Amino acid sequence: MTGIDGARLLDRLRTLGQVGRGADGVLTRLAGSDADRAGRDTLVGWMRDAGLEVSIDAIGNIFGVSPGDGPPVMIGSHIDTVVNAGIYDGCYGVLAGLAVAEALGGGPVAVAAFTNEEGVRYAPDMMGSLVHAGGLPLAEALATVGTDGSVLGQELARIGYAGPMAPGTIRPAAYLELHVEQGPILAREGGAIGAVEALQGISWQRLTIEGEANHAGTTPMRMRRDAGLAAARIVMFLHDHVTRANAPTVATVGSLRLEPDAINVIPARATMTVDLRDPDEERLQAAEAALAEFVARLPDVTVSTERLARFRPVRFDPGLVAAIEGAAAARDLPCRRMVSGAGHDAQMMARLCPAAMIFVPSTGGISHSPREHTADAEIVAGAEVLLDVVRGLL
Amino acid sequence: MTGIDGARLLDRLRTLGQVGRGADGVLTRLAGSDADRAGRDTLVGWMRDAGLEVSIDAIGNIFGVSPGDGPPVMIGSHIDTVVNAGIYDGCYGVLAGLAVAEALGGGPVAVAAFTNEEGVRYAPDMMGSLVHAGGLPLAEALATVGTDGSVLGQELARIGYAGPMAPGTIRPAAYLELHVEQGPILAREGGAIGAVEALQGISWQRLTIEGEANHAGTTPMRMRRDAGLAAARIVMFLHDHVTRANAPTVATVGSLRLEPDAINVIPARATMTVDLRDPDEERLQAAEAALAEFVARLPDVTVSTERLARFRPVRFDPGLVAAIEGAAAARDLPCRRMVSGAGHDAQMMARLCPAAMIFVPSTGGISHSPREHTADAEIVAGAEVLLDVVRGLL
Repeated sequence: MTGIDGARLLDRLRTLGQVGRGADGVLTRLAGSDADRAGRDTLVGWMRDAGLEVSIDAIGNIFGVSPGDGPPVMIGSHIDTVVNAGIYDGCYGVLAGLAVAEALGGGPVAVAAFTNEEGVRYAPDMMGSLVHAGGLPLAEALATVGTDGSVLGQELARIGYAGPMAPGTIRPAAYLELHVEQGPILAREGGAIGAVEALQGISWQRLTIEGEANHAGTTPMRMRRDAGLAAARIVMFLHDHVTRANAPTVATVGSLRLEPDAINVIPARATMTVDLRDPDEERLQAAEAALAEFVARLPDVTVSTERLARFRPVRFDPGLVAAIEGAAAARDLPCRRMVSGAGHDAQMMARLCPAAMIFVPSTGGISHSPREHTADAEIVAGAEVLLDVVRGLL
Repeated sequence: MTGIDGARLLDRLRTLGQVGRGADGVLTRLAGSDADRAGRDTLVGWMRDAGLEVSIDAIGNIFGVSPGDGPPVMIGSHIDTVVNAGIYDGCYGVLAGLAVAEALGGGPVAVAAFTNEEGVRYAPDMMGSLVHAGGLPLAEALATVGTDGSVLGQELARIGYAGPMAPGTIRPAAYLELHVEQGPILAREGGAIGAVEALQGISWQRLTIEGEANHAGTTPMRMRRDAGLAAARIVMFLHDHVTRANAPTVATVGSLRLEPDAINVIPARATMTVDLRDPDEERLQAAEAALAEFVARLPDVTVSTERLARFRPVRFDPGLVAAIEGAAAARDLPCRRMVSGAGHDAQMMARLCPAAMIFVPSTGGISHSPREHTADAEIVAGAEVLLDVVRGLL
């Protein structure tokens, strides 16, 4: 049996990691951008070189299929990135899928690269797989207005990736996603392989706080309606609430903007995002409720809340998780069961078919950063486990 | 003796308040912008109609002079605005000065409109009067890079207001500035005229907080280096520090920006401004020191601080303040001595000559907002007091 061509996998990871890298050395391939087009063109070229049949669906998802009897085992992830990204997140799962398809030399397997997993330019994240799984109407996804005012559907057409195929056309027998952990657990505890049995629930909200603009020098502190101060109170509340609870809940305010954003004017408006995650649905709901209660009690301002995305925690297929553990054991790779803190396309695909994920270590737990790193040997080992699990399903 | 033409003054205030107002109804005339040019052209036209000799200096300050024996009494303010401004701030002082010159029918008086008093696009604020007073070298002021990346000197040349006259050429015998209070005191306590005997000291800083970008879902709270959280801590510290002190110190964070500013990425960098003001220099220094100490102790991040502007408190000329009180009393207008919370061009001119300010009420204390308002009768009464004081000096 042919194994993974590790050198080619690593070479492709590095090559794709240069696509969309600016003159300043910063890698950014936001969904629907020119850089995204360049990355997609590179991937499609490699899929065709590997003899896969490439199809693009209407939300821009890319599939490279090696046909066979019955529905394919799908292996996928995404190639869009955050701003100032590393080279592994998403790309590893897609390129490892391609390496598996090459090693197998036949199907039925499908390698998938889903559109807009990161959700940086267009919310919600995991959009391509969500549309594929029927969780978001195509028209609504295409009409999404980005942070830069662009419309996703127009951008996909512009870059040539609004394809003819209806989303959801390819129904897999199973879905597997290989990914860097993006967290510290495997690296810190010495594991080589994570058999991911569940994903955290995710709650994304946008809060708009309305206060009153006024002169920074002449308005006494007690007479202010400072939207920025209220935003700071919310940031502190979220931090104190989740750290005090001694639970795995995490809360992040990643975006915060003030208006009019002038040094000598009290902020009239603050717009902020809240990202809450928890593997337990009840605890996630409790955190949302605590935030809503705190916000309702804030003095001097009015706050409106918009839900941007909400996904319940997901449990993966126990049979697939056991198969990952078995494949790791057969290769003498230390393996542990774990819960993913990040959202992944696998959680959408789990609505359609048995699904699971395989993690490899992230040095220092760093991700969404140019310092994201996984050792070459760990990259290849993860792909070999993936190949073994897929072989067992065919 | 001719008095103030109140109807013409009010009409000009409203006319100038339409210049630079967008299709959305928002008034914004930032220094050096096309809107600023339009406002300047309007003012210069009125000055010429009034028979004044108009000269423009190299930093774009506009002077309308009615010559006479000896150095002129200068009456001035500014016509640049904040974003989404009201119609009174600055414009009132300039147009009332013009009304005074018209009522006098002779000099020596000079009406001044100083460049970039607001400091929204270019820091520091009160720049034109600061250059006039010799407190900032011309070349340095012209090289100022704006929040939009523009260069002030280039913008002044582009709009035709980089004049031939050397800044500081016109040395006044005295300087008077009439202004809406931009605070609640006169309106709340029933005064018609404020005889301003001092100005607060002003400290402007920009803080840049460096943390580490990381994944919002997978990074445990205790492992984060969240620059946005540190910024929120600073906002809360400033608020708590100045409100606890029961002193007139005010602290404002008007601008706060996160990078990469993405919903699912822990902020790697936060850039924020701090505006501290106090009528007492020692207390202002103590507030700066407390902030510096707090910032130095912040966990998980590194903070660099840049001083954008620093002006010590100013005491105005006691003789001029007494003359304002006398003029108000002669017209049976309730008058109170007060300290200005806002910075004004008068504080720069006080370096050159005896200076003082006259305030009229601001409804609700609101300013730097389209809701800024002063009653017509109060506008005219302030200009009449100004006229009386100037007559007493000639």
